Amino acid sequence: MIVEIVNTGTELMLGRVLNTHQQWLCARLADLGCVVSRQVAVADTAREIERAVRESLSRADVVIATGGLGPTSDDLTRAVLAEALGRELVEDAAVRAHIEEFFARRNRPPPPGTLVQARVPEGALVLPNPNGTAPGLIIEIAPNPMRVGGARGWLVMLPGPPRELQPMFDDSVAPWLLRTLPLRSGFVCRTFRLHGIGESSVQDRIAGPLEAMVAAGLDVGYCARPGRVDVRFRAEGESAGRLVDDAARVLDQHVGAFVFGTGEEELETVLVRRLTAAGCTVAIAESCTGGIIAHRLTNVPGASAVLLAGWVTYSNHAKQALLGVGADTLGRHGAVSDPVAREMAEGARRATRADYAMAVTGIAGPGGGTADKPVGTVFIAVAGPDETHVWKMFNPWDRATFKEVTANQAMDGLRRMLCGLPLEPRDVRQLVTPKPL
Amino acid sequence: MIVEIVNTGTELMLGRVLNTHQQWLCARLADLGCVVSRQVAVADTAREIERAVRESLSRADVVIATGGLGPTSDDLTRAVLAEALGRELVEDAAVRAHIEEFFARRNRPPPPGTLVQARVPEGALVLPNPNGTAPGLIIEIAPNPMRVGGARGWLVMLPGPPRELQPMFDDSVAPWLLRTLPLRSGFVCRTFRLHGIGESSVQDRIAGPLEAMVAAGLDVGYCARPGRVDVRFRAEGESAGRLVDDAARVLDQHVGAFVFGTGEEELETVLVRRLTAAGCTVAIAESCTGGIIAHRLTNVPGASAVLLAGWVTYSNHAKQALLGVGADTLGRHGAVSDPVAREMAEGARRATRADYAMAVTGIAGPGGGTADKPVGTVFIAVAGPDETHVWKMFNPWDRATFKEVTANQAMDGLRRMLCGLPLEPRDVRQLVTPKPL
Repeated sequence: MIVEIVNTGTELMLGRVLNTHQQWLCARLADLGCVVSRQVAVADTAREIERAVRESLSRADVVIATGGLGPTSDDLTRAVLAEALGRELVEDAAVRAHIEEFFARRNRPPPPGTLVQARVPEGALVLPNPNGTAPGLIIEIAPNPMRVGGARGWLVMLPGPPRELQPMFDDSVAPWLLRTLPLRSGFVCRTFRLHGIGESSVQDRIAGPLEAMVAAGLDVGYCARPGRVDVRFRAEGESAGRLVDDAARVLDQHVGAFVFGTGEEELETVLVRRLTAAGCTVAIAESCTGGIIAHRLTNVPGASAVLLAGWVTYSNHAKQALLGVGADTLGRHGAVSDPVAREMAEGARRATRADYAMAVTGIAGPGGGTADKPVGTVFIAVAGPDETHVWKMFNPWDRATFKEVTANQAMDGLRRMLCGLPLEPRDVRQLVTPKPL
Repeated sequence: MIVEIVNTGTELMLGRVLNTHQQWLCARLADLGCVVSRQVAVADTAREIERAVRESLSRADVVIATGGLGPTSDDLTRAVLAEALGRELVEDAAVRAHIEEFFARRNRPPPPGTLVQARVPEGALVLPNPNGTAPGLIIEIAPNPMRVGGARGWLVMLPGPPRELQPMFDDSVAPWLLRTLPLRSGFVCRTFRLHGIGESSVQDRIAGPLEAMVAAGLDVGYCARPGRVDVRFRAEGESAGRLVDDAARVLDQHVGAFVFGTGEEELETVLVRRLTAAGCTVAIAESCTGGIIAHRLTNVPGASAVLLAGWVTYSNHAKQALLGVGADTLGRHGAVSDPVAREMAEGARRATRADYAMAVTGIAGPGGGTADKPVGTVFIAVAGPDETHVWKMFNPWDRATFKEVTANQAMDGLRRMLCGLPLEPRDVRQLVTPKPL
């Protein structure tokens, strides 16, 4: 099954936007057992779109084209490809109704020109777009004259905005692929997410125990990011399920404490779930992380059941006035210190009467470092009913990565406290953030 | 000048890594006046690499291939393309010395196989790699038999890791391009960022006044996102600068109040700059935005000079206890209301003695909505020395987009207050978030 991707958009060719579709679609398709053989990006001119799609259709069973389905004069994909495939555009009543309702809800008449998105190539499968106006489209091309041998092909057209494309792919395209195409049978893929241990260390611990399974057909993949690593087990055929189950057991046995979730779960999702299950609440006192921990927690539906409040005490005065950190503590140890982190966490817990609190104080850079406390130095505190645990990390990354890495460390610390796991991994070497990639 | 990009790497086709080269290289080349006409990503097999590069060389003057220059068995680019172009690989003494020194500095002998990176295609221009071991390579192909007409072409090979490729492009490839190739003279490109007005409305107001300039060679592009639109003016040749200046004046004349920045500036960057210039401070009281406003502001270097503190008062109790919102106000109007937004902003300002404060209270969804206050309802307050302004928006998006859109609205509100602009655009219709794209 040959799949190619064509991403259209002049903004891509000018480098104005980052093409996230390529990674996202390739990962989704790989998880379905289908490796994309080529991805192409072209400007949104009629000539480039048609040429790229024709070339891909000369090689592939399925071509996924993204972008250009909107209502403006730049949006050519639908009309150009319908014409190239010899299909008339006809109005789809359901799509038209959806577009009209979309604007009605916003108390606006549909802007002129927007209803062109209700015109779909004759015979196309229309994919609903609850997050926007332009529907997705799937056209079957049987026979496919662009391909030697004329084998049947499909052209899938998806809207450009990721928040429209991604749910549409998951809800409509993936099920369509599974029922329409001969994807590999018995294909099993499971991903485990680990924090606080490096890729090489994981490999050291599990490669030996997994050797026999790998010989029996198990595929093991590692995807490392700063401070984290995903371990992916894939297998196909009759014994696929059993192989992956056995591999999961090996992983749990050797590095189980580091596994925080599966699939694409984030630490914040896991935390909200565990706190909710325990009927517990949390407060967050941030400084150098600037609000990212609260922001990530509140991305999780149901966070309001567990998060009482967060602070971003960016100045020393705010730490004192809002969290009760002692002027004396600040004076003696400085803002970036164990005692200040401890007082921030305990102050947050007191002020809200939350069961747990996380606090972070550190130096995000690029400025602010000293010989004693270089950029990347951070103290993290987790305060609970029984104890407050504080530990120091060194996260020498650019500011954005520093924030994410530090937020992960704080959240994983709370996860470990909730699970009764040691907060500092036994191998202290793992505390130091692994080499950047 | 036709330029194409070929990104090689099986990890790209599996979706394990994000392809940042495409955006980065396209943006750099666009700024040099050269728009990339096609980008392709393929797996790192000899067959795919050769086929993709041959196809690109059949169309382009310059082909930039990334990846596959390392020392492992996966790294095929150098050998495959040297053979395809009929060049012997010969050892370059300077590269060899660099590689040996690279490992000597780390107290390691060069790992077996790594010196293969010192073998370069005969006649290639060797580009130094201070951040890694594999050099970049530029091969001139004159005549180019793969291209109809045989016009001269160039193949540029760059290492995969961004921290090696980017400095190498800036230090070696860009200068080489400028001295070797007939890039457009007088290419001008300027982008303006607008908030609070939709793409169609901008087009309605400026298309007419710009008509003559477009006829004279001005290119106008729109890139819309929820609640925002970028307007891009491009022109080349002698009158390029004047055309773009005139277009900028038209934009300012008709929609100037909506323009918050240029290039790739974000609202938070502009705010930190304006607050710093005015010697003013700010505090942020968030609820449904969950910390994203503070997070974004603290992404800007220098934010510590202006941001005193932020709150995420996720519960009603936190709004009272931490910001001084009245129990009575909450009881009578509910958390999502004008008076509560006002009291949050004024409470934040009082608690920190900041000059300005932003506050947001609303319903991010997916749950929590009522007939009266559906999901997406939000009240935003900006409190300053002279007045507190509160306004209501309706942002019915998925939670992540809701947060970004609402954060933009709050920050743009403060921008307008700082600039003495009306906080509510004259056309009330623009208050409703424009159509998603």
